[in-house]
Amino acid sequence: MSEIVTFARRVRVDKEPVAAPPASFPLDRSDPQSWLAAYRLVRAETERRAAPLSESDQTVQSMPDASPAKWHRAHTTWFFETFLLKPYLRRYRTFDDSFGFLFNSYYEAVGVRMARAERGLLTRPTAAEITAYRLHVDHAIERLIAARSPAAEPRLFEVLEIGLHHEQQHQELLVTDILHAFSLNPIHPAYDPAWWMAPANVPARDVRLSGGVVEIGHRGGGFSFDNEGPAHSALIERVDVAAGLVTNADWLAFMADGGYDKPALWLSDGWGAAKREGWRAPGYWEDGKHGWTVLTPAGRLPVDPAAPVCHVSYYEADAFARWAGRELPTEFEWEAAARAGGLADAFGLVWQWTRSAYAAYPRYRAADGALGEYNGKFMVNQMVLRGSSAATPPGHARVSYRNFFYPHQRWQFSGLRLSSYPA
Amino acid sequence: MSEIVTFARRVRVDKEPVAAPPASFPLDRSDPQSWLAAYRLVRAETERRAAPLSESDQTVQSMPDASPAKWHRAHTTWFFETFLLKPYLRRYRTFDDSFGFLFNSYYEAVGVRMARAERGLLTRPTAAEITAYRLHVDHAIERLIAARSPAAEPRLFEVLEIGLHHEQQHQELLVTDILHAFSLNPIHPAYDPAWWMAPANVPARDVRLSGGVVEIGHRGGGFSFDNEGPAHSALIERVDVAAGLVTNADWLAFMADGGYDKPALWLSDGWGAAKREGWRAPGYWEDGKHGWTVLTPAGRLPVDPAAPVCHVSYYEADAFARWAGRELPTEFEWEAAARAGGLADAFGLVWQWTRSAYAAYPRYRAADGALGEYNGKFMVNQMVLRGSSAATPPGHARVSYRNFFYPHQRWQFSGLRLSSYPA
Amino acid sequence: MSEIVTFARRVRVDKEPVAAPPASFPLDRSDPQSWLAAYRLVRAETERRAAPLSESDQTVQSMPDASPAKWHRAHTTWFFETFLLKPYLRRYRTFDDSFGFLFNSYYEAVGVRMARAERGLLTRPTAAEITAYRLHVDHAIERLIAARSPAAEPRLFEVLEIGLHHEQQHQELLVTDILHAFSLNPIHPAYDPAWWMAPANVPARDVRLSGGVVEIGHRGGGFSFDNEGPAHSALIERVDVAAGLVTNADWLAFMADGGYDKPALWLSDGWGAAKREGWRAPGYWEDGKHGWTVLTPAGRLPVDPAAPVCHVSYYEADAFARWAGRELPTEFEWEAAARAGGLADAFGLVWQWTRSAYAAYPRYRAADGALGEYNGKFMVNQMVLRGSSAATPPGHARVSYRNFFYPHQRWQFSGLRLSSYPA
Amino acid sequence: MSEIVTFARRVRVDKEPVAAPPASFPLDRSDPQSWLAAYRLVRAETERRAAPLSESDQTVQSMPDASPAKWHRAHTTWFFETFLLKPYLRRYRTFDDSFGFLFNSYYEAVGVRMARAERGLLTRPTAAEITAYRLHVDHAIERLIAARSPAAEPRLFEVLEIGLHHEQQHQELLVTDILHAFSLNPIHPAYDPAWWMAPANVPARDVRLSGGVVEIGHRGGGFSFDNEGPAHSALIERVDVAAGLVTNADWLAFMADGGYDKPALWLSDGWGAAKREGWRAPGYWEDGKHGWTVLTPAGRLPVDPAAPVCHVSYYEADAFARWAGRELPTEFEWEAAARAGGLADAFGLVWQWTRSAYAAYPRYRAADGALGEYNGKFMVNQMVLRGSSAATPPGHARVSYRNFFYPHQRWQFSGLRLSSYPA
Repeated sequence: MSEIVTFARRVRVDKEPVAAPPASFPLDRSDPQSWLAAYRLVRAETERRAAPLSESDQTVQSMPDASPAKWHRAHTTWFFETFLLKPYLRRYRTFDDSFGFLFNSYYEAVGVRMARAERGLLTRPTAAEITAYRLHVDHAIERLIAARSPAAEPRLFEVLEIGLHHEQQHQELLVTDILHAFSLNPIHPAYDPAWWMAPANVPARDVRLSGGVVEIGHRGGGFSFDNEGPAHSALIERVDVAAGLVTNADWLAFMADGGYDKPALWLSDGWGAAKREGWRAPGYWEDGKHGWTVLTPAGRLPVDPAAPVCHVSYYEADAFARWAGRELPTEFEWEAAARAGGLADAFGLVWQWTRSAYAAYPRYRAADGALGEYNGKFMVNQMVLRGSSAATPPGHARVSYRNFFYPHQRWQFSGLRLSSYPA
Repeated sequence: MSEIVTFARRVRVDKEPVAAPPASFPLDRSDPQSWLAAYRLVRAETERRAAPLSESDQTVQSMPDASPAKWHRAHTTWFFETFLLKPYLRRYRTFDDSFGFLFNSYYEAVGVRMARAERGLLTRPTAAEITAYRLHVDHAIERLIAARSPAAEPRLFEVLEIGLHHEQQHQELLVTDILHAFSLNPIHPAYDPAWWMAPANVPARDVRLSGGVVEIGHRGGGFSFDNEGPAHSALIERVDVAAGLVTNADWLAFMADGGYDKPALWLSDGWGAAKREGWRAPGYWEDGKHGWTVLTPAGRLPVDPAAPVCHVSYYEADAFARWAGRELPTEFEWEAAARAGGLADAFGLVWQWTRSAYAAYPRYRAADGALGEYNGKFMVNQMVLRGSSAATPPGHARVSYRNFFYPHQRWQFSGLRLSSYPA
Repeated sequence: MSEIVTFARRVRVDKEPVAAPPASFPLDRSDPQSWLAAYRLVRAETERRAAPLSESDQTVQSMPDASPAKWHRAHTTWFFETFLLKPYLRRYRTFDDSFGFLFNSYYEAVGVRMARAERGLLTRPTAAEITAYRLHVDHAIERLIAARSPAAEPRLFEVLEIGLHHEQQHQELLVTDILHAFSLNPIHPAYDPAWWMAPANVPARDVRLSGGVVEIGHRGGGFSFDNEGPAHSALIERVDVAAGLVTNADWLAFMADGGYDKPALWLSDGWGAAKREGWRAPGYWEDGKHGWTVLTPAGRLPVDPAAPVCHVSYYEADAFARWAGRELPTEFEWEAAARAGGLADAFGLVWQWTRSAYAAYPRYRAADGALGEYNGKFMVNQMVLRGSSAATPPGHARVSYRNFFYPHQRWQFSGLRLSSYPA
Repeated sequence: MSEIVTFARRVRVDKEPVAAPPASFPLDRSDPQSWLAAYRLVRAETERRAAPLSESDQTVQSMPDASPAKWHRAHTTWFFETFLLKPYLRRYRTFDDSFGFLFNSYYEAVGVRMARAERGLLTRPTAAEITAYRLHVDHAIERLIAARSPAAEPRLFEVLEIGLHHEQQHQELLVTDILHAFSLNPIHPAYDPAWWMAPANVPARDVRLSGGVVEIGHRGGGFSFDNEGPAHSALIERVDVAAGLVTNADWLAFMADGGYDKPALWLSDGWGAAKREGWRAPGYWEDGKHGWTVLTPAGRLPVDPAAPVCHVSYYEADAFARWAGRELPTEFEWEAAARAGGLADAFGLVWQWTRSAYAAYPRYRAADGALGEYNGKFMVNQMVLRGSSAATPPGHARVSYRNFFYPHQRWQFSGLRLSSYPA
């Protein structure tokens, strides 16, 4: 990264930068066979992720923020049934009328729904019944795809594509949610013994952005969620964005320096949360006679100093940045730096907290109807994370992708990279 | 106290009255084979009750007061392992060292234990692993029984017998707890389609007790829990105890008369609970277009006017009695009436709230050590119920048996009978 | 105390024992002037107790269980207005129509009332307005008394007498409630610098009761609350009741022996409360560099080893008794021992927890109407205390008097005496 | 961004726009007499605002977010004592050593402090003692000012000025907090019978901003809080900002159209808050037989359709904007429009919610030490409000002033103005 090349000159906003991951599934939008393949690919990945889980693993809900694996499997299916089969497939017969109530999530427009915190009580329908539900809907969707033309009915295929990306989001949650459940089980089961968090790349130099007007948001071809647009201009300062992620070694230094004990480093709400929750280290860390360990999908493992720190809340990320004499980048700085190339591990290890509150881009309008409830209604109280994590389905994210969580949450694969304003 | 005929003259306290149920398992205490048969019988009944439950049905915990079926299966096994195998069987190898932590309940003396409210998080160990645990312990217990002599080691067999009755208590809880979990599932699964609550017998006349000194508590042969003794004398008033249970028909009359809307009928704490919880009818009742239904182990059924009312709290029972111009009997009045014969349905339909707070009998001393934590430590804030219910293992209860729950609880098979003091 | 004289022979139940305190106010029930004097005496005592309090001291409510002094002053006045002036005094003009809502306590039958926990928000009406209210009602009551004849209208004077005793109860609460508020103020204000807790008398020998049928409850002349009757017989065991109260020295020994750290000593609910609340010593105690101090109405003072322990919950009292290898007496044992004479400090230092749950005596019926809500509706979940305390208006209590609080509460002047069953 | 006319050409950022209020107190910074006059002016205003309050009005705390008036009076005084007298005045004798603990607010660096929610328990020190404290500190501050030179000790006078503006902030809170306390008192006392909310001006046309780079934040002379800087550039869209505030008439139309019943209008967190809190109208509104009334400092008054809506949360403001088919302006749009002139009622009626989350401006650094805790530590979870209210001391706010509250809060004088992006 040679310094001080203004962003405006460096990035061609009409195509994705090299830093972007490959598409999550090959898709020739004009070809029904390609849609069919994509649908099968995505649906199979969900089942692959659920496969290591027992019937009761799939049922448990360890906190209101998490959902059972069985619920994720059913809810993603309900999405296709509700937004595609019911409106578009003649004589479609609903699999089970009660499932609308059981597996709706936040779509107020679609009807009443089960209290979020009580999803773990659904020991019935069983996992096998959910499997039957998935097969029933898969069969119908495949019939639907085979019978329709993308050219003639673009809205149908647009909804289908949303459904595929929606299911991918739940694939990640399926992993983070079972990890949380296992973290509360004293015997710490392993979900996937082969799972592994790669060490972070640590480039020697930051990415310097010269400041000025940059283009933000999704444009050009390909899918995006509505919250990634409208594409628009933003003004950023001259800023150095760290090319590498903050590592566990960095975090151990923060801890050794009393980072969790110095209120001056913390936001007031963050300090309150840290005291209330007793935070002394990142989520899932435990201090034992052989040093710090962390619960991962592969079970409890020693903390690897070279790996990126993970399972930290925004409050902790913010305190760490203050301790380091730096800051978290804004989501615009992050996007500009990523488009410029040079961010190591932008994707695939940990989501990266930014100091941007999750908000609508100018001229953003949620879609009408139930699908419009998808992203816009969460635009308050949450902070934006950029990039993607080791639990994200490969190719799901992109440089304009905006993830968002509450600042106290840390059961996601959330980490950080730093930035600072040069003198 | 002039015309008192003491109860002691009417009841032969050295044997159980005719109203008492048969013994729950035949037991010739001098014969190891008989112990073996009893052990097998009790253990098999637990498995029989768990058999209709799926892996996740066995794992769910629907409220802190309830426990998962899998936990009941493991905890009762842990009891035998902890209090018999470890102290008495040489070279016994613990099945899994973590189970002590996972499946201890309230025995502070035995070590730390899992937070009660988080039992539902234990998706692992699986139901199959619990089955293996049960078999491991069963095998060892059978070896132990075969090798020892009741005459030579009476304490060993005393603890064994406690373990059997302890397991029977959990057999009832297994049913009440899964019923509560199913009640929160909108599709209302059925646990046992053949389950049935018999209509109550409604004798025309009350049982009149003449008042005076009566003998209370367990004496004579056979097993009892420590809280049933020491046997002692108590003074009761002249009192009429209803021979029959309060029925659903009676309760519907109470409801129709605004029973849930008149604070003057209620204890202050009860009125608070009723408003806070929104009680308008007994537990599990729902008002539908075809009238009241109630969730039972057989699923949701129409309320049967002839059946005894069930799933009422002490607060409701007390309000009902006040509405009826009568009272609930004390536990001594109940016991005296039951010993005198003439109580219909004393056992086997619903537990019957008394207006006695659960307290130690005079000179009661809890046993030393962990087993001493069994009953005595709960002797505050709870009310005594007498009799037994349709969910109680046949023969488990007896005339001196004391069950106890908090006055707001209603997930047990709890009903009532009335009494009054003649002018 | 010579031993083993049966109680039935020792006590003349038609008059109060020598241990009983003098009547709280002289009263010749046939003489209106005597009623007038009693009314003035009681009303003045309330004002005397409120006099050291500032306007805001009188307004604060430090927890839902406590009430502001201003509220006590107004509520006792409301009682006279509601139950005497409105029904009995023609053309009585209510002082302020809103006061019925503001100063009703738990009388559901009289109308809606302010949420108990929000009484501290009533900065208006001011203390001066409450004074005006008291004068307005006093004037009317005095007119009423002067115009009526006790012989002709006994019910009127009966309600008047209830009102006087009711006001005395609130006189005690006024002190306990302001002490609680001051305990949460870091500068620990003193309410009454001259206040003093006398040392306990410590007789060498217990009072032995031989056991048998004893007479319990109020009978004979004089006032009593409804919960002290009906007088009835009870059967007690042979028992030794400690003649002296448990002292701070005793309690320090319990603490030094790890009393607060041994779960085996505690009821399960009590252990939970102790951990949750962080109890390590009685209420208002603090450990400083010069040893233990306790907040009293006179401010923070060193703990006097000779004084009776005070501000302990039932849970602590029960644990202490178990630690001491003894028990708390039942309320019947307490009453029998007190009637027998020989209990030192039965009255006037600290209320004494008994191990009796607060319940109705046989054939108890609450009065009809709002006054019937007075005592009966609290007969669940609470434990009986007997005697009286240094905060009780002299003469208010008597040998049949039953006070009651929840087992976790300790802001009252609550202590204990022990008992045990001889071998 | 072609046709942009940068705001920089339209606004002279080196001086305050005409829309800005006059300075809150005349101040010739080089003249100690001017400092003295300013100090006296500000301090007297606090006392003027507290004057209508009784001792207990000054003590009550009606919710954790509010503070007692007595506390506001003492805390602002503690600020001067802590940050000026202790470091700068030789031989200054602290008024009372306990006050540091009692009246510190969130300054973790200065020491432990009283739990925020328990401030209402401080019936002592009395209001008179707080008055004495204020006089003690005033006397010392006046001596300090008289003895020092602004030129020689600029930091001293800088802290003094912060103290004055800090006290003004608490002057507003004193009013909002007592209004909240009075709102919970069923007799609805009036704080200031002469208080009056002026009708909103409703200009026919919006203020159109052409979009482009604008200058944001405080620059030039005069005081500002640290969160108003550093001054920096921001890019705004072409936008129409309403010249007038949303009125009660507008809000009644929203209510009549079911605004509180349509989840599609609401943010998810907002809908949750509205259901949980039972919101059906703005804060302090009540529906009576003569229509809607609202509690104001002058007591309960009919809702004036011409007045700006007040006491709405961010959630409600956001839902209203969506219902109106418009948005809330960002804080940058607000500032640009205000600098451009043309915003009616920018100051002096109600604070105006913006859709900007409260965050640090680029290169913002909190000051070192305790004063650095002032603004920066709250930069998460809150939304920015701009302008000022009828409760704000005249002249306290300015065009760059940033107020901030949580999106659910509505006890402040908070309203809104709308904006939209032209096609």
